[in-house]
This record gives sequence, C-alpha cells and structure tokens, in this order.
Amino acid sequence: MRLRHKPWASEELAKRPNLVIQQPEQHKGNWNNCFCTAQPLYVEVGTGKGKFLTGMAKQFPSINFIGVERYESVLLTAMERVEAEKLPNVKLLHKDVAQLLEVFAENEVDRFFINFTDPWPKKKHAKRRLTNERFLTIYKQLLKQDGEIHFKTDNQGLFEYSLHSMSTFGMAFKNVSLNLHQSGMEENVMTEYEEKFSAKGMPIYRLEATFRP
Amino acid sequence: MRLRHKPWASEELAKRPNLVIQQPEQHKGNWNNCFCTAQPLYVEVGTGKGKFLTGMAKQFPSINFIGVERYESVLLTAMERVEAEKLPNVKLLHKDVAQLLEVFAENEVDRFFINFTDPWPKKKHAKRRLTNERFLTIYKQLLKQDGEIHFKTDNQGLFEYSLHSMSTFGMAFKNVSLNLHQSGMEENVMTEYEEKFSAKGMPIYRLEATFRP
Ligand SMILES: C[S@@+](CC[C@H](N)C(=O)[O-])C[C@H]1O[C@@H](n2cnc3c(N)ncnc32)[C@H](O)[C@@H]1O
Ligand SMILES: C[S@@+](CC[C@H](N)C(=O)[O-])C[C@H]1O[C@@H](n2cnc3c(N)ncnc32)[C@H](O)[C@@H]1O
Repeated sequence: MRLRHKPWASEELAKRPNLVIQQPEQHKGNWNNCFCTAQPLYVEVGTGKGKFLTGMAKQFPSINFIGVERYESVLLTAMERVEAEKLPNVKLLHKDVAQLLEVFAENEVDRFFINFTDPWPKKKHAKRRLTNERFLTIYKQLLKQDGEIHFKTDNQGLFEYSLHSMSTFGMAFKNVSLNLHQSGMEENVMTEYEEKFSAKGMPIYRLEATFRP
Repeated sequence: MRLRHKPWASEELAKRPNLVIQQPEQHKGNWNNCFCTAQPLYVEVGTGKGKFLTGMAKQFPSINFIGVERYESVLLTAMERVEAEKLPNVKLLHKDVAQLLEVFAENEVDRFFINFTDPWPKKKHAKRRLTNERFLTIYKQLLKQDGEIHFKTDNQGLFEYSLHSMSTFGMAFKNVSLNLHQSGMEENVMTEYEEKFSAKGMPIYRLEATFRP
C-alpha cells in the first residue's frame, strides 16, 4: 500500500464521529444501535481505502458494513469515499484487527471479509498474516455459528498458506476459485488492489470458509 | 488418456502374477508378505501407464508401492515399464478404486497418491471424481492414523472442487502449491500427464492432506 502520511488524518477522522466511530469499545454487543436499521453485520478487516466496502454497501443496502483499518492516513480516504456516497449502512473503525475482541461481542458478526491482506512472505512474520491461527481464533469467537469468512488475494504464497492454516484450524471451504476473474463470478465487487493486480493479468484467488462446530 | 484398446492385455497381465497380483482380495491385511521386505506401503490410485510409480519406487527403495488401475490396456504399459526396471518394491492391481475396501485392510496403507485423475467436469458426475466424499471415506478407512494423501493435478476445476470436498470432510492441508514447477519442489517425480501439461506451461496444483481424528 503506497502510504502517504497525513499528519492531519486523526483530526479529520474525529470530525465525522457518526461515520468513524470514536470509542468503539462502548458499542460492543450493540452495533446494530449505531445503524439506522437492525440487519446483518459484515466486517471487512484491513479495509484500506474503502473501495470494496463502499461498493458492497451500495449493492447490499440490507446489510450493515464495518471497515477496520489501522492506518489513519488510509482510513481518511475511505472516509471521504463513504461520505461522497452518503451511505447509511457503513461505519469505519480505526483499530488493529488483533484488538477486535474489545470491539465486538461473541456471535455479533455475520461475515468477515479479508481482501488482499499483507502477505508477510517471511516465515518469521507468519503470525502477522490476517489468516494466521491467532486471527482465526478471533474471527471464530465473533462470528455467528454459520458465519462465513470471504477471502481474496492476488498473492499465491498467502493463499497457499491460508489453505493450510484455515484447514488445520478445522475450517471448511466452498466456492474456491483459483482464477476469480476468469470464472466470471457475478456480483464481484473489486477492491483497489484487485483492480491493480487483475489489470496486470494476475490470477485472483478466492475462497469462502466456515468454522465447523 | 489416449486409450488404445488391447484385446490381449488381460492374457498378458496374467503372465506376470508376481507383479500384477491376480486375486488381490486374498492378500487383504497381509500385503507386506507379497513384497520381499516389510516396509511402509504407498498406493497410487489411477496409476495409468506407471511412470510416477516406477520413478518413485526407484527413488524410494525402502517403501513398497502398489498401483491401482481399472483399464487393463493401460495397466499393460505400466507392467512393461516396471518389468524393464526390475523393481522388487512395486505391485500392480487391476481394480476399480471404488472396490479398495475388498483389497486392503483398515490401517494398512501409509499414503495414497492421486495424480491427474479424471476431472469429470460436469456437476452430475462429481461422484466419479477420486476426491469425492465417496472415495475419501475409503481412503480414510484404509490409511494409518497419520497417513497422508498426496494429490496433484493440472485441472483447476478439479483442484478447486477437491479443496472444498476434502476440507468439508475434515481434512487438513499442508505443502499446498498452486504452481508446483515454479516452486521448485525437490524430489518431484513427474507423471505422464504432468510432463504433458507442464510442457505446455500450465500450472500444476498440489497438496498434501491428512484426516483429522
Ligand atoms: C494491502 S492493503 C489492501 C487494502 C484493501 N483491502 C484492498 O484490497 O485494496 C492491506 C490493508 O490492511 C491494513 N492492515 C493490515 N494489517 C492490519 C491489522 N492488523 N489491523 C488493521 N488493519 C490492517 C493495512 O494497513 C492496509 O491498509
Ligand atoms: C487421466 S489418467 C492419469 C494417469 C496418471 N496418474 C498420470 O498422472 O499420468 C487417470 C487414470 O486413472 C484411471 N482411473 C480413473 N478412475 C479410476 C477408478 N475409479 N479406478 C481405477 N482407476 C481409475 C484411469 O483409467 C486412467 O488411467
């Protein structure tokens, strides 16, 4: 992610408390109250500049969406994008995914999206990958019983690793695609990274996963 | 598989009873007795013309190998290949994989190989795929507790399907490769199909899987 540091980001984000939720811990277990309508909750981790989140929220008005991102400079772009679309069903959180247990209650989330997350190719950094066991443990606690994780990436090594770590964690896969854009999946909303890498002709890998009881 | 029908195949196979085992049901539970040495047993299902089996048996003399193939005309080529190499640690069976419970006892097999098996792309033929639940049930019964299945294919759809069916069956993956020849895996023995498809530049998919208890 090309990161332009914006020292003013924090202040700007604070100006939109209805969109960028300021003390998210206070809403743990009651996220539906933050939205106009009580409806299923989908959370994207590592939202980046919010292209996917905004596209999804437009396409699925009967879902509430929350984007989680740890870099304020990036989150600012996401904020501007959501604002421009005037979407009532999106909120943004400035949080590290490792802290999500502070923010959401057990069984509160219907679906997680993990899109083009940093591959951390070195083995010694495996714990930082958002599909590492450490994070799967968190998603599992927060997801409803038959909640799903939808994961896509251009990174072959990360996808191979995730097939290993998720299956070893006891997860089951469906709708696996080893070349998403060729399979002509309908309703696919592209992320920023996806646009960039698929334009270069690189295959996009995708899967849906559930935790078995 | 380009299949030249050889009406004389059955008769030829019967001439080498030490190599092409004639009444395999009789050896159920005692396959080690058929080999000169009692050592781990690896079984390849859908062996085809036996290139992989022969290569592996040469490379790993301290493993016993059995190749299972349902077409006699194809098995004949495998037989000639094994004979030419004078390998003591290979046997061949003319059997359908669906019948393996008649041939092997529970916990008798240390590893299964499934290489470039027919993809049966039509959904209504999914049950014929050698990674269908129907076959996984058989492998699970025959494999030792921590026995492994090693699977490779050029077929994207079959690999996607197998990730689904195996993970749903409770299997865990390791050493997943979405482009085997690029990953430079050492000790890889190529099958006939693998040579053909990788020469065309197609990626070869591979995984190792275990059944979780
Ligand atoms: C490679 S970018 C992809 C952005 C976007 N999902 C896309 O597909 O275009 C990954 C994003 O995830 C964020 N991220 C990575 N690890 C994170 C973590 N532990 N907590 C929150 N955000 C994280 C990074 O800051 C970055 O913005
Ligand atoms: C596509 S060929 C691949 C041969 C070889 N494994 C390779 O990689 O070159 C698949 C082989 O599996 C055999 N086969 C398919 N289904 C089978 C079954 N149910 N039982 C035994 N053999 C089977 C076919 O007859 C064929 O020879």
